[in-house]
Amino acid sequence: MIDGVKISELSKFIDNRGAVLKYLRCDSSSFNSFGEAYFSIINAGITKGWKFHKLANQNFTVPFGKVKFILYDDREHSKTRGEFQEIILDNLENYKLLSVPSKIWYSFKCISKDFSILANITDILHDPDESINLDLSTKEIPYDWQ
Amino acid sequence: MIDGVKISELSKFIDNRGAVLKYLRCDSSSFNSFGEAYFSIINAGITKGWKFHKLANQNFTVPFGKVKFILYDDREHSKTRGEFQEIILDNLENYKLLSVPSKIWYSFKCISKDFSILANITDILHDPDESINLDLSTKEIPYDWQ
Repeated sequence: MIDGVKISELSKFIDNRGAVLKYLRCDSSSFNSFGEAYFSIINAGITKGWKFHKLANQNFTVPFGKVKFILYDDREHSKTRGEFQEIILDNLENYKLLSVPSKIWYSFKCISKDFSILANITDILHDPDESINLDLSTKEIPYDWQ
Repeated sequence: MIDGVKISELSKFIDNRGAVLKYLRCDSSSFNSFGEAYFSIINAGITKGWKFHKLANQNFTVPFGKVKFILYDDREHSKTRGEFQEIILDNLENYKLLSVPSKIWYSFKCISKDFSILANITDILHDPDESINLDLSTKEIPYDWQ
């Protein structure tokens, strides 16, 4: 487990009409402030990343499909520096909240047959100057997505 | 249009990996405060409602499927009292933000072949004492969902 990364249980209420999947609450220990919410649609087999935020904290969940995350800690003074963490989220037994603090590298792959929907609520508004993107094939992160 | 109901454009960025669908931002005129976020899964052909919130304001979007909303204004001093409003949201040409203020009755139906996913961000935490549910067949709302 990378220091500061949090995986929280989320409630799910299923009936014959459908379901209610709870997501982030303002009284959650993962909630800081509300910046914006968006969805990332990931086509089958596609990996997005690597991404790094200097300031923004992420609150991910997957209401459709199945997504594998790889997180990488390269923070200079972190006690888990150099560690990777793999997490799988979906809308079934892995319907959970993944909270990723700033300064953690992350990438994620759609591992369901069809596309996946990743929801994210960040604590600040999107700002391209606040994030860094690296190609999946970068030598700076010793992980092989192949 | 019912007074106070707002439909806002949302950005969508599509590429060969998938898409990014923007949702609510803290600088949106529809944003008040963050209470909680959740998803309502609606099976094909199912209608959920009627629902009324004494206090909570709703910010809906549909990242998967297609949903028809019927809103009803029964507010005593509203200039649109007695009016209905029909809105269709989906993740294609109708990918929009529907903001429904408190004290408006609403119900919604999944009109896609498969199920739909309705996302909602409310400005206060869920509180059962704050909302009223009426059966779809109620005589108090002169609308026939059949």
